[in-house]
Amino acid sequence: MADPKIEILYGFHPVREALRANRRAIHALLIRKERQDDRLKSLREMAAERRIPVQVVDERRLTEMAERGVHQGICAQVGPMPYNDLADVVETANCLTGSSFVLLLDSLQDPRNLGAVLRSAYCAGVDGVVIPRDRSASPSPLVSKASAGAMEHLPIARVPNIVNALRHLKKKGLWVVGLEGGAERSLFDCDLTLPLGLIVGGEEKGLRPLVKQHCDFLVAIPHARVFNSLNASVAAGLAMFETYRQRSPRRSTA
Amino acid sequence: MADPKIEILYGFHPVREALRANRRAIHALLIRKERQDDRLKSLREMAAERRIPVQVVDERRLTEMAERGVHQGICAQVGPMPYNDLADVVETANCLTGSSFVLLLDSLQDPRNLGAVLRSAYCAGVDGVVIPRDRSASPSPLVSKASAGAMEHLPIARVPNIVNALRHLKKKGLWVVGLEGGAERSLFDCDLTLPLGLIVGGEEKGLRPLVKQHCDFLVAIPHARVFNSLNASVAAGLAMFETYRQRSPRRSTA
Repeated sequence: MADPKIEILYGFHPVREALRANRRAIHALLIRKERQDDRLKSLREMAAERRIPVQVVDERRLTEMAERGVHQGICAQVGPMPYNDLADVVETANCLTGSSFVLLLDSLQDPRNLGAVLRSAYCAGVDGVVIPRDRSASPSPLVSKASAGAMEHLPIARVPNIVNALRHLKKKGLWVVGLEGGAERSLFDCDLTLPLGLIVGGEEKGLRPLVKQHCDFLVAIPHARVFNSLNASVAAGLAMFETYRQRSPRRSTA
Repeated sequence: MADPKIEILYGFHPVREALRANRRAIHALLIRKERQDDRLKSLREMAAERRIPVQVVDERRLTEMAERGVHQGICAQVGPMPYNDLADVVETANCLTGSSFVLLLDSLQDPRNLGAVLRSAYCAGVDGVVIPRDRSASPSPLVSKASAGAMEHLPIARVPNIVNALRHLKKKGLWVVGLEGGAERSLFDCDLTLPLGLIVGGEEKGLRPLVKQHCDFLVAIPHARVFNSLNASVAAGLAMFETYRQRSPRRSTA
């Protein structure tokens, strides 16, 4: 386990989605002896097809490997998370959807929030995610668990400088929209069908001033009552699904 | 501290919101010696006005009191969380907004999710929240922290039977809408401007069959990609803010 090139994914969803996504090397599945249900059977079949060894181990070993995370009787020894270049993420975005949708995070600290955001991003049709290399939770097995495995599918670029990333997006024709509690424009009154780079700030401080300066628009989530901002992963989820709602062929008539 | 009628709120927001809401008895504020910033000054002033004693204590004492929660240098000894009757929650809802908006939760297990949901509920204009007395995270100081103190403001009813609560809501003229991943109708295509009881399921299993049977409508959050459901607090946030969006006088033209 001391090999830095090996990570331990734990829990049913991260392991299943890593198998499905087929992006990282999977060296072995480790399964608790007592766990023999149907969901597990499907994983065993996927592993067999790809000649991935399956070891039956005891609870204590799994708990150690998962570093006390909720492993649900299953772990996988996998290669490192495959990151993408920023340029790839932006190019892929254009090709995939016709109207790019890139999410940038500056800078989530809590791995559970990052996981919830990646899960929402995958469900809302985000093409790729850009996160800072430093001062941010990084895509770990804990994040994969909190994302229900969505992390295993999403193109993710880690960049040294998020402002430079914004400049790159704009050069490539994306509009940069920042989520900012104090903004005058409502999220719901912003056209999000344009090729979009959506940037969301961290838990405590939101977007940094220099980041805000590089946004084409700043938008706020309107509140029914004056209060402190929302949970970071809820706020990001609202912005991503408002984008998806506006882009969907069948829209609310309300 | 063994007195069951005394709870320890910790962290700046829960303490401030408990002071502002003025719903529970506040016996004392406990503040770390070194903490002397402006935010704290405002709390001291509120406490002085209401003749609440302020004690300066050391870090270790606060950490003990907060049971290792992130206390940010401040705790408060408070009376128990004041719950409301179901009937009160429903009556208040009608009076407050003209078009009731009651949230029911069946049954969130994770106190952090419950906190995030209460925070969203307060921001989205929910009139009151109904939670089951058993098999659910209960509104503890940890939940208040995760809600950034929103829990201190919201009318909350704890009921022995959520299905009976749904029956009561319907008798009072509310429409019951259940959030259910498998539903055919989209959240975005449902009229949420009616007097509304919105019911959201727990982290793993969603709504129970009997609960679903008592809903007037079931709606799903549409996804861009086929995947496992969203994080429970994100899903609840989306449904609540879609309700708020539809009810807001100024709406997206998209």
